[in-house]
Amino acid sequence: MSEDSEELTHTDDEGSVQMVDVGDKPDTSRRAVAAGEIRLQASTVDAIEADELGKGDVLATARIGAIQAVKHTWETIPMCHQIPITNVETEFSVADDRIELTVAVETTGKTGCEMEALEGVTTGLNVVWDMCKAAEKDDAGQYPDTAIENVCVVEKWKRTL
Amino acid sequence: MSEDSEELTHTDDEGSVQMVDVGDKPDTSRRAVAAGEIRLQASTVDAIEADELGKGDVLATARIGAIQAVKHTWETIPMCHQIPITNVETEFSVADDRIELTVAVETTGKTGCEMEALEGVTTGLNVVWDMCKAAEKDDAGQYPDTAIENVCVVEKWKRTL
Amino acid sequence: MSEDSEELTHTDDEGSVQMVDVGDKPDTSRRAVAAGEIRLQASTVDAIEADELGKGDVLATARIGAIQAVKHTWETIPMCHQIPITNVETEFSVADDRIELTVAVETTGKTGCEMEALEGVTTGLNVVWDMCKAAEKDDAGQYPDTAIENVCVVEKWKRTL
Amino acid sequence: MSEDSEELTHTDDEGSVQMVDVGDKPDTSRRAVAAGEIRLQASTVDAIEADELGKGDVLATARIGAIQAVKHTWETIPMCHQIPITNVETEFSVADDRIELTVAVETTGKTGCEMEALEGVTTGLNVVWDMCKAAEKDDAGQYPDTAIENVCVVEKWKRTL
Amino acid sequence: MSEDSEELTHTDDEGSVQMVDVGDKPDTSRRAVAAGEIRLQASTVDAIEADELGKGDVLATARIGAIQAVKHTWETIPMCHQIPITNVETEFSVADDRIELTVAVETTGKTGCEMEALEGVTTGLNVVWDMCKAAEKDDAGQYPDTAIENVCVVEKWKRTL
Amino acid sequence: MSEDSEELTHTDDEGSVQMVDVGDKPDTSRRAVAAGEIRLQASTVDAIEADELGKGDVLATARIGAIQAVKHTWETIPMCHQIPITNVETEFSVADDRIELTVAVETTGKTGCEMEALEGVTTGLNVVWDMCKAAEKDDAGQYPDTAIENVCVVEKWKRTL
Repeated sequence: MSEDSEELTHTDDEGSVQMVDVGDKPDTSRRAVAAGEIRLQASTVDAIEADELGKGDVLATARIGAIQAVKHTWETIPMCHQIPITNVETEFSVADDRIELTVAVETTGKTGCEMEALEGVTTGLNVVWDMCKAAEKDDAGQYPDTAIENVCVVEKWKRTL
Repeated sequence: MSEDSEELTHTDDEGSVQMVDVGDKPDTSRRAVAAGEIRLQASTVDAIEADELGKGDVLATARIGAIQAVKHTWETIPMCHQIPITNVETEFSVADDRIELTVAVETTGKTGCEMEALEGVTTGLNVVWDMCKAAEKDDAGQYPDTAIENVCVVEKWKRTL
Repeated sequence: MSEDSEELTHTDDEGSVQMVDVGDKPDTSRRAVAAGEIRLQASTVDAIEADELGKGDVLATARIGAIQAVKHTWETIPMCHQIPITNVETEFSVADDRIELTVAVETTGKTGCEMEALEGVTTGLNVVWDMCKAAEKDDAGQYPDTAIENVCVVEKWKRTL
Repeated sequence: MSEDSEELTHTDDEGSVQMVDVGDKPDTSRRAVAAGEIRLQASTVDAIEADELGKGDVLATARIGAIQAVKHTWETIPMCHQIPITNVETEFSVADDRIELTVAVETTGKTGCEMEALEGVTTGLNVVWDMCKAAEKDDAGQYPDTAIENVCVVEKWKRTL
Repeated sequence: MSEDSEELTHTDDEGSVQMVDVGDKPDTSRRAVAAGEIRLQASTVDAIEADELGKGDVLATARIGAIQAVKHTWETIPMCHQIPITNVETEFSVADDRIELTVAVETTGKTGCEMEALEGVTTGLNVVWDMCKAAEKDDAGQYPDTAIENVCVVEKWKRTL
Repeated sequence: MSEDSEELTHTDDEGSVQMVDVGDKPDTSRRAVAAGEIRLQASTVDAIEADELGKGDVLATARIGAIQAVKHTWETIPMCHQIPITNVETEFSVADDRIELTVAVETTGKTGCEMEALEGVTTGLNVVWDMCKAAEKDDAGQYPDTAIENVCVVEKWKRTL
């Protein structure tokens, strides 16, 4: 575990919220991969899979939502710095009753990019939810089967330039 | 379940992505509640709970991140309409090894607000993650214990005005 | 033609830039349709048409770019008001050496939505350009064949509610 | 023409939309110039030219709209990277029945800036349209004479730093 | 003074930050006027006044910055609601050693618009500062004479629709 | 004072508004500190100071508003460049009848960051105003005692890297 003094980033000695000073950090090449999944009814997954129902567009929309979320992380997460994103990879894996989204983000900057990858995953999954609302809602307009699960950071590394 | 023709919202007959036409829908009073949780190490939760470590500011930052995410849903989720948000409630529940966030959103508009509530939950939990990065990372800089789970829509209703 | 006193909207008697006061205008149902085209090499259009080259995703990306541009017009065009967009329709028509994009926007508000439709068209065509850059560039990295043409307002009407 | 494998940027082998990985590209000094024109009634151009009608503010507003659009290209065009803009030049040329806008953009980054220049041109011309709406509309509220034409990339170069 | 229970808006009983629930408030016609001034060197004010130095564009830029700031208040001020702005008026008054900016905002909504007017004033004055940086800086690059003063809400009223 | 030719930045020889070309400027380490104060009733300051009234959250919200404003300066101030912010420090000083906010901004870029610091100060103070509206309003809904004063640049320096 990290040392005590770092236990909570983004707060100073008096507990006031703050950004971390990265002015003296060297530029490094960094990559973070996050993943997560959305549970759906099997019939909804089938509908997404079937070509006639616009699968391409559904997943394309979620990809674009994920990529835009990665680029906007510096304003969505209040204490994040704006970093130069050099690459974003999105990959969907479709199972019987769920769709998994993996987002990899690369940067050459002074801070890590795991928050960018996480924002890409949660937003991309929310976009899938949005695109499948009518299919997932029950008669009372509720979502008994839909859930986002297992959002985690799969891998993170940095390399001196 | 909803009728077949609605199975995938946001795509037209040819599968092209589109917004839903809400011009003929009446204004209704709507409320949606979403919830989710972030798993953390017990020591991290303890640090958040202890006053000297700035708990107020950590959760305040996450509240603000959640509220801002609710208000920005119309640009984050590509096919969402911009709706007049009349109320946002955020509530944190702290357990030994996790923090749960519930976000309720109310609107008086032509479409539901569950996407707004979901965006509030996932972004608020991502902000908690961001604030606890140093405490949650292991020696290799990975997050073996941190995860976002159980993101779901708790309740949704509408009432004719 | 409109009366003299209105010749330039958005400037007052002294020529200072300003928004138009719409506080006393009634809410009306309005629709505006704009269109425009991007000239491309025939080989590029062929590549977009061929399924293996991701046509769905190229046009889906342009659709999403157009819809987002419609929703952001109030901040892109400095003197525009933010109006409640109730519907956006996008339609691509592919010819041998060009792609035409038509964007229809509907609102129930106090001002027209032709600027929203125009922003949707020009941004959507710019997205197509962006997606086809490698195919359209010549050996010197220039775009001798690519151009956006014929951007106009096809139709505009309003109806008292 | 570029080699086949690059025919459509922003899609991978399976046609899924993606950003281009620029992590290994060197920083270079780049400049792109785009231009385009808006056709207007001669009486509208006269009104813009006349000092008493606020010409300065009309074109100043369009300049600012163009510059802001250049800076926002990374969020307007879904697959664009955010690049450090070092210079933006805007120039209007007023003819009898049209106004031409030229936008030059410079950056020292890993990708070209022609999309930034194009966004500057199309948005700047849309701002001119917005400022002249009352003068251009006919009695039926239509725009029979107004059009955006000839939007193209005039010049593009890069220089190793 | 308002009653005790309202002393701090935007915090609930436990002091947690929150938006105010406006769902049950009626729509009213509201107007707020804010003003403030920037102190400048007399030579800088002279330069702004002189036509050859682009006075029109300097104040036009500040006007546009003020209007855009009014429209963006809902995202700049974390607990603000997004309200339909129906009118924005900006007026500059130039004295020997200062420029005063007055911004009036009108809305037909459920909350007041004084924050919008204040954001317009402070941002508009910051834009003036930005445009005059070179003239105001002393040899050491400091701003001994420049200051923003007297930012206040001049007037506020609402009228039942 | 700076030389005549620089008297108004952001306008060219003909007075047209423009960004400054920074392409040939070297990267330097820069810091700017701005400060300002908001005058409040003593009873409001007391309420903010008292723990039960959520002081932490009020000032935390203002801190976050200030930090976000710093990061958004490139879009709020029309002619500003987007620069890499490496550090933001916010400090509140509470007196009997006023709260002072100091914001320090650091960057390693091609232009200064005093506008970023000023935007942080004015927005942070506006957020305090927003959080105290109910306490500061008199019976007629006016703000006779509230004002933002003394907004200035405290210090500015740069250091060659």
